[in-house]
Amino acid sequence: MITPVLLCGGSGTRLWPLSRKSYPKQFAALIGDTTLFQASATRLSGPDFAAPMVLTNADFRFIVTEQLAEAGIDPAAILIEPEGRNTAPAVLAAALWLEKTDPDALMLVAPSDHVVPDAAAFRAAIEAGTGAAEAGQLVTFGIKPTHAETGYGYLELAEDPGDFAARPLALSRFVEKPDAARAEEMLAAGTYLWNAGIFLFSVAAILKAFRAYAPALVDPVQAAVDQGKPDLGFLRLAPAPWADANDISIDYAVMEHADNLSVVPFAAGWSDLGGWDAVWRETGPDARGVALSGPATALDCDDTLLRSEDDALEVVGIGLKNIITVAMPDAVLVADASRAQDVKQAVAALKAKKAKQAESFPKDHRPWGWFESLVIGERFQVKRIVVHPGAALSLQSHHHRSEHWIVVEGTAKVTVDDDVKLVTENQSVYIPLGAVHRMENPGKVPMVLIEVQTGTYLGEDDIIRYEDVYSRD
Amino acid sequence: MITPVLLCGGSGTRLWPLSRKSYPKQFAALIGDTTLFQASATRLSGPDFAAPMVLTNADFRFIVTEQLAEAGIDPAAILIEPEGRNTAPAVLAAALWLEKTDPDALMLVAPSDHVVPDAAAFRAAIEAGTGAAEAGQLVTFGIKPTHAETGYGYLELAEDPGDFAARPLALSRFVEKPDAARAEEMLAAGTYLWNAGIFLFSVAAILKAFRAYAPALVDPVQAAVDQGKPDLGFLRLAPAPWADANDISIDYAVMEHADNLSVVPFAAGWSDLGGWDAVWRETGPDARGVALSGPATALDCDDTLLRSEDDALEVVGIGLKNIITVAMPDAVLVADASRAQDVKQAVAALKAKKAKQAESFPKDHRPWGWFESLVIGERFQVKRIVVHPGAALSLQSHHHRSEHWIVVEGTAKVTVDDDVKLVTENQSVYIPLGAVHRMENPGKVPMVLIEVQTGTYLGEDDIIRYEDVYSRD
Repeated sequence: MITPVLLCGGSGTRLWPLSRKSYPKQFAALIGDTTLFQASATRLSGPDFAAPMVLTNADFRFIVTEQLAEAGIDPAAILIEPEGRNTAPAVLAAALWLEKTDPDALMLVAPSDHVVPDAAAFRAAIEAGTGAAEAGQLVTFGIKPTHAETGYGYLELAEDPGDFAARPLALSRFVEKPDAARAEEMLAAGTYLWNAGIFLFSVAAILKAFRAYAPALVDPVQAAVDQGKPDLGFLRLAPAPWADANDISIDYAVMEHADNLSVVPFAAGWSDLGGWDAVWRETGPDARGVALSGPATALDCDDTLLRSEDDALEVVGIGLKNIITVAMPDAVLVADASRAQDVKQAVAALKAKKAKQAESFPKDHRPWGWFESLVIGERFQVKRIVVHPGAALSLQSHHHRSEHWIVVEGTAKVTVDDDVKLVTENQSVYIPLGAVHRMENPGKVPMVLIEVQTGTYLGEDDIIRYEDVYSRD
Repeated sequence: MITPVLLCGGSGTRLWPLSRKSYPKQFAALIGDTTLFQASATRLSGPDFAAPMVLTNADFRFIVTEQLAEAGIDPAAILIEPEGRNTAPAVLAAALWLEKTDPDALMLVAPSDHVVPDAAAFRAAIEAGTGAAEAGQLVTFGIKPTHAETGYGYLELAEDPGDFAARPLALSRFVEKPDAARAEEMLAAGTYLWNAGIFLFSVAAILKAFRAYAPALVDPVQAAVDQGKPDLGFLRLAPAPWADANDISIDYAVMEHADNLSVVPFAAGWSDLGGWDAVWRETGPDARGVALSGPATALDCDDTLLRSEDDALEVVGIGLKNIITVAMPDAVLVADASRAQDVKQAVAALKAKKAKQAESFPKDHRPWGWFESLVIGERFQVKRIVVHPGAALSLQSHHHRSEHWIVVEGTAKVTVDDDVKLVTENQSVYIPLGAVHRMENPGKVPMVLIEVQTGTYLGEDDIIRYEDVYSRD
């Protein structure tokens, strides 16, 4: 049995506006109907796989549980990194946790923001590496290059991969991201693969390697795991020792030093969706190079991506060449395709002008569900609030606003001061200014409520919390 | 005194998505803070001008009154054309109405969707034409060409305009829209002006010309005016005779035949904003040709228009050249600037796929104010409803939905069956399914109300009207 270890603490901005710090690309449905994280978890499920472990950060923990639940996957553990320290501490934490719970496990470490269209071929490649991993090898999976990419590291093979069939081959060394000329040479040589950051090894083998090549990491991460706090199904790694762990990738910390490396070639299609140009390629452009997503219309366009991320948002392109357009109701990106990597600069520019679109979405995900502001006036605001079955908002009060709640789907259990009652579809409740109140969903289906606030100050920080099942301040 | 006659029944689609059939460009703030219609009416006001007449259609009548009120302009008359019949019947109707009310008037006929940055210079040009108009001439205003435009008709001068100073010159003839070569010739010749469709003449002179050159129009239009119905301050021209009037422009019907034509050159800047490329020019592009409007950010762009039509919508362009981007929360246009005239095709394509964005906005303007849908679920809908002071919705009931109303600004007078009461900010009312109800704004400020509907069918057509001050079915 193989335990998938899904890394999903990253928050890339190269796919802005769809990927934002508060809800990055791994949680978005970039290709197909499920999110990249869900697709990654699903791809690594089945008879050969144990329940997955997930490494993420505190901000994303409820997104992870929500998306796993939606995909019907029950995780073995969700480890919360107090702060991002790159891949080495994360993988080490997973290995140390498994050492306690399943010391004979094989670990399949994978990022959760990649696209692998042929999941069966990918599982077959993993199967092909299993024997080597069981024999103590550190197995990495190398992607057959399709072009002279300068954005990835490479794996140099000790032998000719022939037809790139999935079998363990000897690995000579890791190669840093090359310049264009070197990338062309490596593509021509035929003995280099892309480093996709996907690994298979036994708990014992990787711990041995960490102890040999990165001993300074072991004590802090061991302490972070041992002193970690279970919290609502998560394991929160202990912040103090975690802060002592170096911020370093597993490649630098371990792989580049190890002498028990194998690589399994993978040639059935892969992308890290590292920019909108990659998304364009993976979307499957038509004969003129046009790729559409959502309600988008192209008139006489070539080599162009037109994406609308909202069913109620029509996007039209006319006479475009090499243009990427990604439209959301609160943000629109239009870029020359050759400038896909400069989207990061755009995000920085928006951040500099304090535009909330730089990092946040209109939808705000919370432990109990999510809300979005539908309209904000000078002295009123209307929100849609969706509460998961069994979830509850904190017991709270406000100094500056009253609230009208109208339940439009499901049933709410509402507390207003000493009064507790059930409120169902088409019923309303009034929460006077100052009243201590709570909203819960006691039912089996999501509860949707429209909240109309009126008052002189409507900020999220006008809140006094008396009780919170999610231990927030 | 000159009576402005503002023509604003048109509904162009070349400036989609900002201009749509239900709310076309003359009513939008395309350049500056006021709408083109408001700017046109304001430009033709002052000591030399009487109150304006407006020719429009039934769909736009309340937009016209709302925008005039906002601009502080009290119209002499608003004539409603039962259907669009081009400019000749419209101008004739205005002349026949003035014949009855102010037979000695001079009429200044102008479209209401043009941009004239220098209003004082424009009024001076009108002043320069007044003597000729009083002497019985049909005075047209001709724009000094700035480039070899193929989209306009031209006016051929009988004499050299010299420095294009504003004074009446003799006009040889009207010239149809030319091909590119002919446009170049006319630009080089220096004796041709653009026909902007702006005219000054006395009521007597234009009626004499209609009777001489387009006698078939006179009886139907006279009957349409005489049998017109006053309705809430509008004059609704009688549909039956109006339908007998030819659909013809004033150029074809009268001007091309008349021998008492003068033209006053105008060289101080003008645009009909006939496409987004024209809007780009009029917006005042910077040294690299970049024109921005709303929250828009350009990174390394050239000759590009980036417009966001919503304060909450960030638009970013990266590395663009010759691109027009116009973004609204429900529709985004991205076009090569050379294809600005093909926006019409885009609208046709959207119409073919039945996208409501082809013709309608999320905001729905009604006689009493406007509403917009904030969110639509399977069995609920949330609307923001804004009611003008003194206005009232119809007395109505629904078969399939209940409604919760929460007043968030101003005060509402609410009727529910036999109960009538005042509801003010932060108060709510419940309208049960089937109840006969009405919402009014008895106050002096706009009333804003959030409506939460629940029910199995939420279409606008689930309405039984019992009484309506606006005589709707």
